[in-house]
Amino acid sequence: MLTLLANPQFKIYAVCCVILSFQMLVLGAMTAAKRANRKNYLNPEDVKVAFKDAKLIEGAEHPDVARVMRAHRNLNESLPLFFALGLLMILVGASPLGVNICLGVFTGARILHSIVYINEVQPWRTMFFAIGSFSLIGMMVQIVLSVLAAA
Amino acid sequence: MLTLLANPQFKIYAVCCVILSFQMLVLGAMTAAKRANRKNYLNPEDVKVAFKDAKLIEGAEHPDVARVMRAHRNLNESLPLFFALGLLMILVGASPLGVNICLGVFTGARILHSIVYINEVQPWRTMFFAIGSFSLIGMMVQIVLSVLAAA
Amino acid sequence: MLTLLANPQFKIYAVCCVILSFQMLVLGAMTAAKRANRKNYLNPEDVKVAFKDAKLIEGAEHPDVARVMRAHRNLNESLPLFFALGLLMILVGASPLGVNICLGVFTGARILHSIVYINEVQPWRTMFFAIGSFSLIGMMVQIVLSVLAAA
Repeated sequence: MLTLLANPQFKIYAVCCVILSFQMLVLGAMTAAKRANRKNYLNPEDVKVAFKDAKLIEGAEHPDVARVMRAHRNLNESLPLFFALGLLMILVGASPLGVNICLGVFTGARILHSIVYINEVQPWRTMFFAIGSFSLIGMMVQIVLSVLAAA
Repeated sequence: MLTLLANPQFKIYAVCCVILSFQMLVLGAMTAAKRANRKNYLNPEDVKVAFKDAKLIEGAEHPDVARVMRAHRNLNESLPLFFALGLLMILVGASPLGVNICLGVFTGARILHSIVYINEVQPWRTMFFAIGSFSLIGMMVQIVLSVLAAA
Repeated sequence: MLTLLANPQFKIYAVCCVILSFQMLVLGAMTAAKRANRKNYLNPEDVKVAFKDAKLIEGAEHPDVARVMRAHRNLNESLPLFFALGLLMILVGASPLGVNICLGVFTGARILHSIVYINEVQPWRTMFFAIGSFSLIGMMVQIVLSVLAAA
């Protein structure tokens, strides 16, 4: 354990995990806040404890709520890969420069992805999604190369 | 590896991961069971292999099915954060008491969250969700403090 | 760290994580490709930067798009469990044979699950889903047994 904390890459990984986890919580809270704002709820029991004029949602969610949910879900689909591949990259002893680039680029790209998603900015959203995905592919390549080198 | 198993916090983490993973499987199985119960399927090929009077779903899912799916999805959005932050907390050497509290409180709150979600109990659902989220924030704070102390 | 790379089970775990993470990216890309193919987008800003005759989706997603999304989501619901339980299994020192079987069976079953989901093959889809879930339960049992043996 002490050896991991002495590893600068591990510290960067830990901080990136904290930042992106916090972003997940913020996106979840934003969904709830936007839904409360529309006074439109998914569960009958929520209507009872909410505002007097709250009502159950009929049909699809309001576009503003659905947008934040998609940003949230999109992060939820790539964050577990980052958690697993980031840790593996450090545990297999990939090059420190490669680790720093992949961790930093993924974290930056995913923060910007959520911001441009909520603000409806294209083609930047697609671009930041692609950059995040390429960081993950870079991590995969380095993990496989390190495993093969150790074989 | 031996050092990790000698760490009581690591054992608690391992058991909490097993409990919450099992809960994920249970929620997935409940969704399938409720859908089979309504004899309403999402995929045409499922209708063929299911009951004789099964039919393809039209429009939205039945509220009972949708409710379990939301409980499942809600856990799926916070469990990866717990897996990553819980392990990091131990690896950075956070205080044993802090680790025990965060792991135990999150696990208890998320079990109760699923139970009250399915049983439509408010405001307890929102409260257990909040408790789970605050445990995650507590983990984030302790990870960042440990990383800074080691810097 | 060196001890982990000297562990053959850890190398298998790393390779399985890379394969299944790549599968997640492929399923995400397939969803986007199928949606572009239908020229039906979820976001108004996507319509502007896409093909001239692209339009905003009305009502539900096209069944082809929804199918790939369900395969994607299904993997997203079990992959974080595999990441966490697979690593734990190695860290608690479960039997190498048990680790090899669980890692290999889960990875194979989940690859086949996505393939048969997209190709609408039942009852194979349910069968591969069940095999994947039983691998996870096998991992849970071995983790708990190892933790108890070390207590």
